[in-house]
Amino acid sequence: MKITDIRNATAPIASPIANAYIDFSKMNASVVAVITDVVLDGRPVIGYGFNSNGRYGARGLLDERFIPRLMEVPPEDYSDGTMLDPHRSWDLLFRNEKPGGHGERSVAIGVLDMALWDAAAKIAGVPLWRLLADRYRQGEADEQVFVYAAGGYYQPGKGLDALKDEMRGYLDLGYTVVKMKVGGAPLDEDLRRIDAVLEVLRGDGSRLAVDANGRFDLDTAIRFGTAVAPYGLRWYEEAGDPLDYALQAELARHYDSPMATGENLFSHQDARNLLRHGGMRPDRDILQFDCALSYGLVEYLRTLALLPDHGFTNRNVIPHGGHQMSLNIAAGLGLGGNESYPGVFQPFGGFADAIAVEDGHVALPQAPGIGFEEKSALIALMRQVTET
Amino acid sequence: MKITDIRNATAPIASPIANAYIDFSKMNASVVAVITDVVLDGRPVIGYGFNSNGRYGARGLLDERFIPRLMEVPPEDYSDGTMLDPHRSWDLLFRNEKPGGHGERSVAIGVLDMALWDAAAKIAGVPLWRLLADRYRQGEADEQVFVYAAGGYYQPGKGLDALKDEMRGYLDLGYTVVKMKVGGAPLDEDLRRIDAVLEVLRGDGSRLAVDANGRFDLDTAIRFGTAVAPYGLRWYEEAGDPLDYALQAELARHYDSPMATGENLFSHQDARNLLRHGGMRPDRDILQFDCALSYGLVEYLRTLALLPDHGFTNRNVIPHGGHQMSLNIAAGLGLGGNESYPGVFQPFGGFADAIAVEDGHVALPQAPGIGFEEKSALIALMRQVTET
Repeated sequence: MKITDIRNATAPIASPIANAYIDFSKMNASVVAVITDVVLDGRPVIGYGFNSNGRYGARGLLDERFIPRLMEVPPEDYSDGTMLDPHRSWDLLFRNEKPGGHGERSVAIGVLDMALWDAAAKIAGVPLWRLLADRYRQGEADEQVFVYAAGGYYQPGKGLDALKDEMRGYLDLGYTVVKMKVGGAPLDEDLRRIDAVLEVLRGDGSRLAVDANGRFDLDTAIRFGTAVAPYGLRWYEEAGDPLDYALQAELARHYDSPMATGENLFSHQDARNLLRHGGMRPDRDILQFDCALSYGLVEYLRTLALLPDHGFTNRNVIPHGGHQMSLNIAAGLGLGGNESYPGVFQPFGGFADAIAVEDGHVALPQAPGIGFEEKSALIALMRQVTET
Repeated sequence: MKITDIRNATAPIASPIANAYIDFSKMNASVVAVITDVVLDGRPVIGYGFNSNGRYGARGLLDERFIPRLMEVPPEDYSDGTMLDPHRSWDLLFRNEKPGGHGERSVAIGVLDMALWDAAAKIAGVPLWRLLADRYRQGEADEQVFVYAAGGYYQPGKGLDALKDEMRGYLDLGYTVVKMKVGGAPLDEDLRRIDAVLEVLRGDGSRLAVDANGRFDLDTAIRFGTAVAPYGLRWYEEAGDPLDYALQAELARHYDSPMATGENLFSHQDARNLLRHGGMRPDRDILQFDCALSYGLVEYLRTLALLPDHGFTNRNVIPHGGHQMSLNIAAGLGLGGNESYPGVFQPFGGFADAIAVEDGHVALPQAPGIGFEEKSALIALMRQVTET
């Protein structure tokens, strides 16, 4: 088999929302299509990939460096003749890249890696979660995956009633745990927002996660943690700068309920530093690395392989991003769950059209590949933007 | 004053060399020209910037994100009316960027920051080192800067005699300290290469630095360090992965002579992690952060401001990159020196045409700005590639 073409496009995922750090009005995403000469059902197998929200598309890097590296080599460098090998492809993509500096290119490679795994699973004729379970977990796959609804963004004119309506909507959709943004308003205002959402959750703090998006310094992080400690929240996410491991470790000494972080660490080396220096506690804390932003699944497997050395298991991992790639990884490799954005970042966020969330869990797509073909708005957009 | 245009080009800095990690045959660099409406001597002031070697040019990021952010705002957002403000410009460039993931975009901003400082110093009518000394060091500037010759790369067919000839050439140019690559060959071969170079240096290990470019794992790093310990080398650079702070800290427990690292850390947060977790010793070790790859001088000032908290001073800093921007910073802010590449990465590497290296030091350019106009091959290339 060989790759005959790789198409590279940029699509808007702009949303009129803001977290404590950025607004999303100019956010976009890369979409790639890896076209192969393998024909199934009369059509060439095409693998699709995109990057999840929070980081911009990587069009220039893809065109200038990464797509040429795959297109310039003979097919035997990434294929055994019939099957595409994402691991060998990854080595080709990273050729002549220096260590360190893991950002942006980690998105470019993550997007391509997603498309390569989609194509590989399609060629194998199985959903990706099945392929992963067979290769890496003796065939055992989770039949459903815990998902939580991430929302509660700051929006101009959005009051407490609108926030409560939003959260009620998530419960109506079948979610049991919701997440809201904090840190973009003064503490007392954020506490009123939290109280409002807890009303909707009947006072059950274990069903509410809060996300500061790295906004707090150490004092503010501890002050916020102390203020919300009585609620027993599901988790307290990204209190400080994602690279400030010492802040995270110090917060752990002041905050007993679960903490979560990791969405802005884009390599196994950065993840390892969090595990070594960040004071994260295997008995309760959550790791949120997102393969689509961090060199893809090939690198993710390296990250997951580090966990046992530090007392963690795959169940500690609930990836950022709300996309089907992480859903497949969660089911196939036994992660702790997956993020979901019912309201925003469409059509990239969310799962197959026909699969509803029930009691906070989703079942899995059965189509070969990642399952994009079961999400009609997403596959339509991917096909449209990658057509020449 | 206002910025009337920003030009963005890519130039090859390909060289037929390799370090322990990558080969440089496809390396390139971004060159930008920030054109202002300030007229001096009948011509508009133009600031130039480029990225140093080891990371690729950032054309796509510059076009897609960073140049538009400066061009879309009114001039009062980056200027007080007569003077360009690189600090406020930096805030504009980083708007709507999430924390963490410091790579590639750090190059794009680094290139623009260099051009903005070049323009600002030209508008002020002084060399950049003088502007920095006046603003940040009560006017005190170093009259000359220690430089060392970085070379000793692996090249096909390059034997010990060629290596010795190369090093003799550096001494003939006026350098007193030289650096060579290690880690790209087996230990015994590297030791023969080191012995050969030490012959040229009359056995004085304090005049030889070695650079493993992050190639070693912990065991190999310690084994190499133990093998070279008797030489008392000037420094042992980037033994392991640049983000493996624990490796660096453990190496420090086994290797007493100076260590150096930092060229692949691209933000003050990453630098802080090295200072916190990397076991670097203020009484002997060298920090090599390179502003041109790490968000420019505005961010570099944040990094330098961290040093006293960890017992270091600016004199511990000898930047990677061998360019005139770091030379200006070294003189203006009192760093420990600057890298130099007499043989490679031309015309970006090196200093003003008329200023020779004497006894391991260079004097400073006197032209307003960074001094590019005093390096004829460089300014010719910059003008050529940024002309429309």
